[in-house]
Amino acid sequence: MLGRIRPRPEDIERLKEISGRIITSAERLAAARSLELKAMLVGSAARNTWLAQDHDLDVFLGVPENADLGEALEVARLVAPEHEEKYAEHAYVHAKIDGFDVDLVPCYMVKDASKLRSAVDRTPFHTKYVGERIQGLEDEVLLAKQFMKGVGVYGSELRVGGFSGYLAELLILRYGSFEKVLWAASRWRPGELIDLEGRVVGVGVSALGQEPLVVVDPVDPGRNVAAALTLDRMLQFAAASRCFLDRPTLEFFFPPKAKPLSDEELVALMEERGSSLMLVNFPAPPVVEDVLFPQLRKAEASVRALLEKTGFSPLRSEVGSFSGRAFMLFELEVSHLSRVSRRAGPPVWEADHLSRFLEAHPEPLSGPYIKDGRVVVELPRTYTRSEDLLAAKIGGLSLGKHLSSAIREGHNILVGPEIASIKDEGFRAFLREYFEARNWIC
Amino acid sequence: MLGRIRPRPEDIERLKEISGRIITSAERLAAARSLELKAMLVGSAARNTWLAQDHDLDVFLGVPENADLGEALEVARLVAPEHEEKYAEHAYVHAKIDGFDVDLVPCYMVKDASKLRSAVDRTPFHTKYVGERIQGLEDEVLLAKQFMKGVGVYGSELRVGGFSGYLAELLILRYGSFEKVLWAASRWRPGELIDLEGRVVGVGVSALGQEPLVVVDPVDPGRNVAAALTLDRMLQFAAASRCFLDRPTLEFFFPPKAKPLSDEELVALMEERGSSLMLVNFPAPPVVEDVLFPQLRKAEASVRALLEKTGFSPLRSEVGSFSGRAFMLFELEVSHLSRVSRRAGPPVWEADHLSRFLEAHPEPLSGPYIKDGRVVVELPRTYTRSEDLLAAKIGGLSLGKHLSSAIREGHNILVGPEIASIKDEGFRAFLREYFEARNWIC
Repeated sequence: MLGRIRPRPEDIERLKEISGRIITSAERLAAARSLELKAMLVGSAARNTWLAQDHDLDVFLGVPENADLGEALEVARLVAPEHEEKYAEHAYVHAKIDGFDVDLVPCYMVKDASKLRSAVDRTPFHTKYVGERIQGLEDEVLLAKQFMKGVGVYGSELRVGGFSGYLAELLILRYGSFEKVLWAASRWRPGELIDLEGRVVGVGVSALGQEPLVVVDPVDPGRNVAAALTLDRMLQFAAASRCFLDRPTLEFFFPPKAKPLSDEELVALMEERGSSLMLVNFPAPPVVEDVLFPQLRKAEASVRALLEKTGFSPLRSEVGSFSGRAFMLFELEVSHLSRVSRRAGPPVWEADHLSRFLEAHPEPLSGPYIKDGRVVVELPRTYTRSEDLLAAKIGGLSLGKHLSSAIREGHNILVGPEIASIKDEGFRAFLREYFEARNWIC
Repeated sequence: MLGRIRPRPEDIERLKEISGRIITSAERLAAARSLELKAMLVGSAARNTWLAQDHDLDVFLGVPENADLGEALEVARLVAPEHEEKYAEHAYVHAKIDGFDVDLVPCYMVKDASKLRSAVDRTPFHTKYVGERIQGLEDEVLLAKQFMKGVGVYGSELRVGGFSGYLAELLILRYGSFEKVLWAASRWRPGELIDLEGRVVGVGVSALGQEPLVVVDPVDPGRNVAAALTLDRMLQFAAASRCFLDRPTLEFFFPPKAKPLSDEELVALMEERGSSLMLVNFPAPPVVEDVLFPQLRKAEASVRALLEKTGFSPLRSEVGSFSGRAFMLFELEVSHLSRVSRRAGPPVWEADHLSRFLEAHPEPLSGPYIKDGRVVVELPRTYTRSEDLLAAKIGGLSLGKHLSSAIREGHNILVGPEIASIKDEGFRAFLREYFEARNWIC
C-alpha cells in the first residue's frame, strides 16, 4: 500500500537533482542581473511528503520587500523559456521540465509571516515550519493525503473545498499519526478548533463559530488554514474516518474510478427516477477553476432559487466542467406546472392598494376573490415548463461576471433524454457519480 | 325594487292570520294539559322584516324555567300533526302549514337574556328589542338583507358564515339606513367593534381582537352577535358595499343565477387552466348542514395539508353538497411528482442517529450523501399521483366523526375529465361559480 504512494528513492534523487538545477539557474540569472533573489523549493516536494503519482514542483523566487516582483518574474521566464504565464494574486510561470509540472512563483521575503505583502509570501514559512518537524512522519502524511484523495476531500481549490496538503501535514503533526488523525476526525463536529501552538487568541473571532473547522496557522495565528474547507467536505472526512476505522479496506485509498454511463444506463436511470433532468451547458469562460467554480455555484443557487420560487421543486443540482465546457445540472421533482397560477394581493380593506392590484390584473382566469382577508386572482402562467422558464430568465439572473457573458454568448438547455447527446466520457463518469451519490458514510 | 322584496299587505295579513291560529291552538292545547305556556311569533315575521320570497314562520313555545321542555314539544307535535322533528340544542318541530315553513320551538321563559338555559331562550328577547325600535326602518332592513343575499353573505349557518337577520337589523338600528350601513361597512377592517348600548365591558376579552367583527348583543352583552361571521364574508360585504356605493346596480340585489356548466365548457376550462382537478365525493352523512360543513372544511384542511406536504401544491379547494352527496374539490398545480424523492436525516456527526437512519434506508436510489451537514438519501416515492396518494391516505386522515364513517363506507375520487360524469345541475352550477370565483370586488 505505502509502496504505491511513497516516492521511490530514485524519484526523490531525480526531484532533488531537477529542483537543484532550477534553483541554481534562477539564482545565477538573478545575479547576472544584479538582483538579490533567493530560490527555494517549497511544498510537499521540499519535505518528501508528495504522493508518488504527483509530479509537481513549486519553486519560489524570493526578493526583498522593497524589490519589484516583476524582476523575479523576468527571471522565472528565463529559467523556463517554454512556459505559460498564470495569474493568482500576482503573475507566475508554469512550465513542464523533465516530466515535472513546475510552478515558478515570485514572492517577497518578509521577516514575519504575519507581515506578508502577498498571499504566497507565507508559503516559505509553511515549508520551514513543517520541514523542521515532519521528519519520521512522512509516511503518515502520505497515508492521510491518499486517504483524503480516495474519499474525495483532498484539495483546497474551490472546486473541491477540501483539505490542502499543508492542512494534512498539520493534522499529522497535531495528532501524531494517520490513524490518530482518523480517530480525532471521526468525532469532529462543526466548530472544531485545532491550535498547535496554543495561539488561539490570534484568530479572528469571526472565523471561530462561523467556519466549520478552524486550524490556527502556526506561522500566522490570524489565519485559518482550513478556511477553504466546506462543512460537507469536513463531515465527509469525519464520516469516512469512522467507516474506515470500523472496516478498513484499500478502497478508501484507491476507490474504483467511475465508469462512464452508457446511453442505456442513462435512459434506465431516468426511467427509474421519473424526475425531470435539465442540463445547462456553455463554453467554459477562459478563467482558472478557482474563478470558474464559485461563479458556477452562484449561478446554480440563483437558478435553484428561481425554480423553487416558481414551484418546480429542485431535488438536487450539481455543477462541473468537461472538455472546455461548463455545466449546471438540475434534477426536478416537478416537470411542469398548471397554466393557472395564484397571485395574492393586498388585504381587501387597503382600498388604494386593492385598486392598483385590480387595475394590474384586469382579466384574470378566476377572481378577484377574497381568501384569508386578501384579494386573490388566478392568472395564466407564462412558463409551465422548467426549460422555458430557464431559457427566458437565465440572462437576467445574478450570475458571476465571466459566467454571465459566457452564458449570454451561447448556451444549450438539454432536458431528459436530450442529455444523452453529450458523449464526453468525463461527463458520463460524472453522471454515474451523480446518480450514485455515495459519500463514505456508514 | 322594493316591490320585489317587500311583503304585500295581503301577505302580511295572511301571515298574521296563520300565526295567530298557530299561537291560539298551541296555548289552548297547553291549557287543556294544565301547562303554563306562552306561544310567541318571533324572528323577522314578527316585525315585518322578512323578504317577500321567504315563507318562514318561527313560533316559540315558552314554558317556565322549572318546567319540562318535553311538555312544550308535545304541544308542538299536536299543533302540527304532520311534522318532522329536528334537533338543534334541543328538539323542535318543523311543519308545512298553509304554504309556510313553520318551526315550533320549545324554550324557557327566562327573566334576563343573560341567564338563559338554552340558546333559543334568547330569541324572544331579540324580537322584543328589535320590535320596539325598528318601526319605520323595515324597508331598510329588507334592502340590507336582500343586498347581503345578492352578494352571498346572508345567513349565519356555518355553510355560509355570513350575516344573520338579527345582525342585519342591528346594523340598521346602529347606522340608521341601508345606505349608511354600506358606508360604514365599506370602511370596515378586521377587529371592528359595534356596541349599540355602550356595554362593551360585558364582552369577553377573547372575542375582541380574535373575531373579525364584534357586535355586542344588546340583550346579552357577553355575546357577539357576529360570532358566526367569517373574516372573508365580512370583507366580502365591505368590498361589495364599496362597489355598490361607487356604481349601484340592481345586480347586487338580484345577481343572475349561475348556469350549470356544460360538458364542453368544463373540458374547455380544464384545458385552459392546465391544472389537475380532483373530486372526492361520497354519500352525505344524515346530519344537518351545520354539522356537515364544519366537518367537510376540517377534512378539506387535512387533505390540503397532506397534498402540500407531499408537494402537489393545491391551488384552491372547495367543499359542498348536492342531491344527497357531499364533496371536496381540489385543484392542483402539480399533477404528478418524480418517483425519486429526497429524505434528509440527522446531522452526520450524530453517530447513533445516523446509524439508525442508514439502517432504515438500506437501499436508496441515491446516497447516502451529505448536504448542509445532514445525511440525505433519495428514495422511491410510493405515490407519484395525487389520486393514488389520497386513495391510500384518506382513511387515516383526521376527519370529522360523521364524515369519517361516510368516507370509509364508500367514496369516489374523480380526476380531471372524469368529473364530467357528474351531471347534477346544482353541482354544475357550483362548478361555474368555482371557476369564475368572482366576489364583489372593485
